[in-house]
This record gives sequence, structure tokens and C-alpha cells, in this order.
Amino acid sequence: MKPILALNAFDMKAAAAGGVLEERLRERASVFGSASVLFYERPLEFVRSAGCWLYDAQGVAYLDAYNNVPSVGHCHPRVVAAISRQLAEINVHTRYLHPHIIEFARELLATVPERLSNVTFTCTGSEANDLALRQAAHFTGGDGIIVTQAAYHGNTARVSEVSPSSFTDWAPPPHVRVVAAPDVRLTSTAGLASSFASQVSEAIADLERHGHRFAALLIDSIFSSDGVFADPPGFLRDTVDAVHRAGGLFIADEVQPGFARTGSAFWGFQRHGVEPDIITMGKPMGNGFPIAAVVTRPEILDALCAKVGYFNTFAGSAVAAAAGRAVLQVIAEEGLMENARSVGDHLKRGLKELAARHPEIAAVRGAGLYLGVELIQPASGAPAPERASAIINALRSRQVLIGAAGRFGSVLKIRPPLCFSVAHADQLIGSLDEVLGEAQ
Amino acid sequence: MKPILALNAFDMKAAAAGGVLEERLRERASVFGSASVLFYERPLEFVRSAGCWLYDAQGVAYLDAYNNVPSVGHCHPRVVAAISRQLAEINVHTRYLHPHIIEFARELLATVPERLSNVTFTCTGSEANDLALRQAAHFTGGDGIIVTQAAYHGNTARVSEVSPSSFTDWAPPPHVRVVAAPDVRLTSTAGLASSFASQVSEAIADLERHGHRFAALLIDSIFSSDGVFADPPGFLRDTVDAVHRAGGLFIADEVQPGFARTGSAFWGFQRHGVEPDIITMGKPMGNGFPIAAVVTRPEILDALCAKVGYFNTFAGSAVAAAAGRAVLQVIAEEGLMENARSVGDHLKRGLKELAARHPEIAAVRGAGLYLGVELIQPASGAPAPERASAIINALRSRQVLIGAAGRFGSVLKIRPPLCFSVAHADQLIGSLDEVLGEAQ
Repeated sequence: MKPILALNAFDMKAAAAGGVLEERLRERASVFGSASVLFYERPLEFVRSAGCWLYDAQGVAYLDAYNNVPSVGHCHPRVVAAISRQLAEINVHTRYLHPHIIEFARELLATVPERLSNVTFTCTGSEANDLALRQAAHFTGGDGIIVTQAAYHGNTARVSEVSPSSFTDWAPPPHVRVVAAPDVRLTSTAGLASSFASQVSEAIADLERHGHRFAALLIDSIFSSDGVFADPPGFLRDTVDAVHRAGGLFIADEVQPGFARTGSAFWGFQRHGVEPDIITMGKPMGNGFPIAAVVTRPEILDALCAKVGYFNTFAGSAVAAAAGRAVLQVIAEEGLMENARSVGDHLKRGLKELAARHPEIAAVRGAGLYLGVELIQPASGAPAPERASAIINALRSRQVLIGAAGRFGSVLKIRPPLCFSVAHADQLIGSLDEVLGEAQ
Repeated sequence: MKPILALNAFDMKAAAAGGVLEERLRERASVFGSASVLFYERPLEFVRSAGCWLYDAQGVAYLDAYNNVPSVGHCHPRVVAAISRQLAEINVHTRYLHPHIIEFARELLATVPERLSNVTFTCTGSEANDLALRQAAHFTGGDGIIVTQAAYHGNTARVSEVSPSSFTDWAPPPHVRVVAAPDVRLTSTAGLASSFASQVSEAIADLERHGHRFAALLIDSIFSSDGVFADPPGFLRDTVDAVHRAGGLFIADEVQPGFARTGSAFWGFQRHGVEPDIITMGKPMGNGFPIAAVVTRPEILDALCAKVGYFNTFAGSAVAAAAGRAVLQVIAEEGLMENARSVGDHLKRGLKELAARHPEIAAVRGAGLYLGVELIQPASGAPAPERASAIINALRSRQVLIGAAGRFGSVLKIRPPLCFSVAHADQLIGSLDEVLGEAQ
């Protein structure tokens, strides 16, 4: 398995970029060292952005079909204004009272199942998943965690243990089990629900057999890094039932599918008609301002707090609240969930039409504006990661930005800002059609 | 030991606040549940802030001698303008190039020892310490960590293991050893350096004896949560030598003392003339914008990156760079390090003068604008946490904000924004004198 950070990554050793770019790469390597990760064979430098567009120093516009953090659009004026206004007024931690953070918490909790009535703010999705794992451990008394084969849940020490896709060479720690992504190509559509549930049940049994009490199933409800698996809606129900029967918790990592992206529901888990015990969220929550959160039932939070305090200095400030509230308002007032659904459907149809003409497309998957296009070598059916990389770089040359995902890096990952239009979708489809038609 | 979060904490069960405050507390408890932590017997709600002042809804001004995040002053106009301008221009992750983050990295690295030439940006000090522990583990091949008895280094799962002061009832995990804070009252001033080094050496030997290879000594170089221990300058040298002789790393947690606060140096470790292997930083770095970092030598970062990728979505964005650069500029141009030294010296003299008249003050410690006032019961010499709490609440009634620290919660913690003036210091000293003079 290729580490997720190596997907569509620039190879510093291959650098012969020339001119300003080469100088910038050298400068960057000297300060960031081996932790410097850049996209593309020929990295991009952007200096301005708006809506679904990123601009380089020469003013060339790139269509953004990749970035899900600036989810309501790059530099959305209402979000920028809300943050800027609050920054000038007050910005301190939550150990003093402030009305806005309570209002933000209420607005956020209104989007989730009623029993999940407590929110803890953090700054990043990694911090949110780290805290969720601690809550699950304290509540269940267990440490056994189940994740998918190519999962990525964040970058802290504890969360890295359950993020196979971060490593160059990963063996699961003793308390972790992995299950294959819910791919209908490995089973039938009708059989997917029971087959995924069986895998999870077997993993639970194996954990218990090895002395690790089962604590939680942690999954991204659209299985982003596994390669985007969204359908059929509802297939997670049997699995969540199995988790609960075993006394474990279901943690829905909504960092990727949350905040209206799937088009049909505000949260990814809602498409499946299941209720998580813990929900984690992040990326699009502040449209780029670093905010994230864990939402759970009071008794689960209580189990942690009885033993250890949790306080996060920057999280839940009045500025974080201003950013988060502005994002919720823009999603509602600009109808971005409906837009994600309608433009997502249009885009998916267009991609499926490409699949009918280009045999190297094995599957078009996803929901709303989170889509995956799986590439294979037509002759053998084998995954085609090099081809995925070539396509991503060819699209970059046509000023269209997408990414890669999946266990083999062979899935094109398409998740634009939610203000993506039909015209943007058509540009992406047209460019991809050209690239797919080129001689390999 | 009392958990750090319980110091100067509002007791929800004792709530009979009345009116708007009571309603706000109820609202807050309903959304944040048991993770809600508030300061003071009667919590405060602030709606505006500027410089060293926080204002409640009635316009009453409180002198801030507590908050070290808005370190160059609350809502500093230059920092607010820099962030606001950048937010409107572009705010994406570091997998695209942007000139500002490289410039910020260079400016930051110019403040540390030359060999520490790589920086990795994170969003919080907790994430920074979590990453530092992973770097140390990969580089040394060990997991043994030494911290002080009442240390607090952050809130992730891994960092909580080395933060005794977070827990209601803490027993060190097998790979962790604690040493007592470097308190000259337990030894002589002359003997402090060797006594602290001996403790650390014994802890190293004990780790190795139990099969845990020594990885790192992780300390806050002003020992904030232990109760503020700064003197004599240089006492850490013997300890750092011992750490290096044993093949371990010295991680300087500069989240509290960094960014010019100690007055005599930009970083706390510089007062001691030692060179860390890893430096972590956070709180004041963005004056409230969530940014933090880990700085280390390339070979230490390489050891991690050879095995596992590290990427932090929100960290190192152009907006983070704008915030961080503005803070560095304001510190330099407004002479805040010099101000921290001169006003800190004035404040310390005033506090020592109080100590000469009030026998319940056992010690006045610290450097620059990070000061601790240790309170005892004069008759027995025992720690006086209840008295510390009463004084903090009495100062709050006089519109002066400070906090508590130390193993017993008996140390008054004073760490105002760095723009604190002599007049502010005199107001604090005067109010404290009154409170100390009142019948108990």
C-alpha cells in the first residue's frame, strides 16, 4: 500500500524545475526538510483564490475540484467578514463565558441526532479523532479499534495507530483490526451490507480472542481514503447493529463527508440511516479557520471527564464560533446542500458517460460532491495508479485540480467547493475526456 | 495533586448565580456537559478586549494579568489586519507553494540555534508536543519519557500520558518517570543544578532498568504548571548534559516561556544557555490564531518521515503565516521583550516588597512577565491552595485577573500580555496588597 501522503506527491529528488520555482523548492526544502509534501510533478504556487478558483502569480486561473476545506468557496466574503469582525472585538478561550460559542454549539447540535447533545470543540480533525478514541476507551473500558484497510483519521500518535494509509510499511498494533472497504465489486450490491457487517463481527471476535475488549468501529462514512464508497445508502445499518450488540461504539468520522457535501444529508452517516455514538468533524467546519469538534452523548463524555480533564486553549473561541456560524449560515442561505446534490448528480452522470466510452474507468462512485473514479488497466483489470497520477498531472496542465485516493492510489478523488456549478462540472468532464482520449 | 483544570474552576454544583449569568451557565452546561470548564466562583463573561483589558457587557474593564495567548495585546490592530487581509486573499494548505509560509519559517528559525533548521507547523501546542514525542521515539528507538511532577504538556492521548496534572488520580504509565520541580527551597541555590540533574539521571537509569530505552526529557523551561521555577539561570545545563550522555533528547516545551516572555531571551531555554534537540511552541505564536510548531534538527525529523508521513491540513497556511509574522514584527517593533524585562523586574520587585510584609508569601519566582507567588500557611509552612483561590477571586472582584499553578494549586500565576505597563503592574500590586491585608 502506498502511503496517502505519497499520492500525487512531488518528488524532491526529481526536481529540475528551473527559475523561480526551483528556487522556491530549494527554500522550502531547507526549512521544512523531509516533512515537506507538495502536490504534482511540477508543483503549483497560488497567490489568490475566490469561489472555485485558485490563481497563480501570473494570474492563470485553476478550477478547484479538489479542496474541501474552503467548502463554501475560497475566501467567501461573509466568512471572511465574520472572522475579521470578531478578531477585532475579542478572541479568548472558553474559560470565560461568551454568548456566541453557546449559540454556535446549539446550531451545530441541531444538525445531529437528539441524543448526541454534548459538543467538545477542538482545533483539528486529528484532535477530534484523538479525543473520540479516548472517550470510547474510557466509556467501554476497552482499547480494541476497527478501521478500514486504507483509512486515514489524522496525525496524532494515537490516531496514526489507526491510520494505515499514513505509513510506508504498516502492521496493525495489537489493539487494531482492519476490514476491507465496502466495495460492491467484491460482493453483490445486495450482499454488501451483510458482508461488511460480517467482516466487522469477525474483527470484534478476533480482538476479544486476543484480550482486547472491543471499544469502537471508527469509519469515515464515505470511505474517502479507501477510494470513496457511498452506496447503496443504508448498507451500514447491519454493521452498526453488530457493533452495538458487541457493546462497542460507532464513531462516525465526518471530517470528509460532513457539512452537506453528500448532497442528500448534512452528515454522511444520515445517508445510511444510522446513529453514531460519537461524531467527529473538522475540515470544512470553518472554511479554513482551524476548528473541529467531537459530538457525543453526555454519558460518554462523562466517562472521560471523571478521570481526566480536557481543555483546548484555542478551540471554541469567539472567533472560532464566528467562523463556524458563518459557514452554517452560508450553507443554508446559498442552498449548498441542494447544489451539492444537483451538481453532484450532473457530474456523476457525466463521469459515468465517460466510463461508458473509456474502458480504463472501472467505477464511478460517491455522493453529492464527493466522487471517486476508479482506474484499471483494461486488459488485466489491475489497479492503475500510475495512470491516475498521469491523469491528475495532465488535468493540472489544463488548469483543473483533482487528487488521488484508494488503497492503490488508483482512484481519482473529486471533491470541489460546494459552490461548484454545472459549468464547472462540464469543464472538468470535458478536460478529463480529453486526457483519457490521449495516447498513454 | 489537584488536576490543573480544577485550579480556580467554577463549581457548577454550587451555581446560584441568578439572572442572565445563571441562564448562561445552564445553556453552557447543556451543550458542553462535563467538559465545560469555567474560571472563578462567579464566572465572567467578556464581550470586548483591547491591549491588557477585557470588558464585560456592562463595559466594566478588567486588567488582564493572566492571558498569555493574546501576548502582544488583545486584538492587536496589526495582527488583526494581517490576518483579515490574508483571509480575503488566499487560505489553503501547504501542498501548494506560497511564499509567505517560507518567509515565516525563516524568520522563526532565525530565533533558534542554527542546528535546529527544520520546522513543522501544527495548529496547537498539544499537536506540537505529540509530534515531538513521535520524533523522539523514532530517532532514539526508545519510549522512555521524563517529565516533572505537575507537568502539563497538552491534551492528546499520547501527550496526556506525560501530563500528570491533567488527571484526578494519576499513576505514571510504565514508560514515564517524574522528577520533582527544581525548587531551591528543597536544596540550596548552588546545589539546584546538580540535584535536578541527579534526579533526571536516576530516572533514566530506572527506565532502562525496566526495559524502557530513554527517549527524551520533556520540560517547560519555566516550569509553569509546577509553580514557575526560573532561577538560577543556567541550572538546566548539567541536566541537559546528562540527557545527552544517556543518548536521549532534550525537548524544550516553549509553549509557555517562548516568544520573548521571559524578558532576557526570546526562548526560555536560552536563559539557561542550553541547546534543545527539539523545541515545541504554541500559545502566543499567532496571538490567538491557532498556530504552533515543532523545530528540530533535520536528522531527527528524517527518522520520523522515513516511516510515516506527517501532514497537517490547517497548519502553515498563508493565513497562519500572516498571523505568525505579524506577531514577530510587533514583538520586535514595539520592544516587547525589553518591556517584559523592565516591567517584569518592576513587578517582581513590587511582589517581593509585598512578601516582606505578608508572611503568607513564601516565594516570588519567575522571569520577565511570567511570575509565580507561592502562598503558605505562615504558622505551619504548608501550601495554601484555598487561600490562593480566595485571593484570585478577591482580585477578580477588584477587576484584576490572575490564575493558579503548582502541584498544590498554591502558587499565584501572573503572566499578562507583554504590553503590560508599569501602571498596570502597580495596579496589580496595589490590589494584591489590599487583598492580602484583608481578614481571612
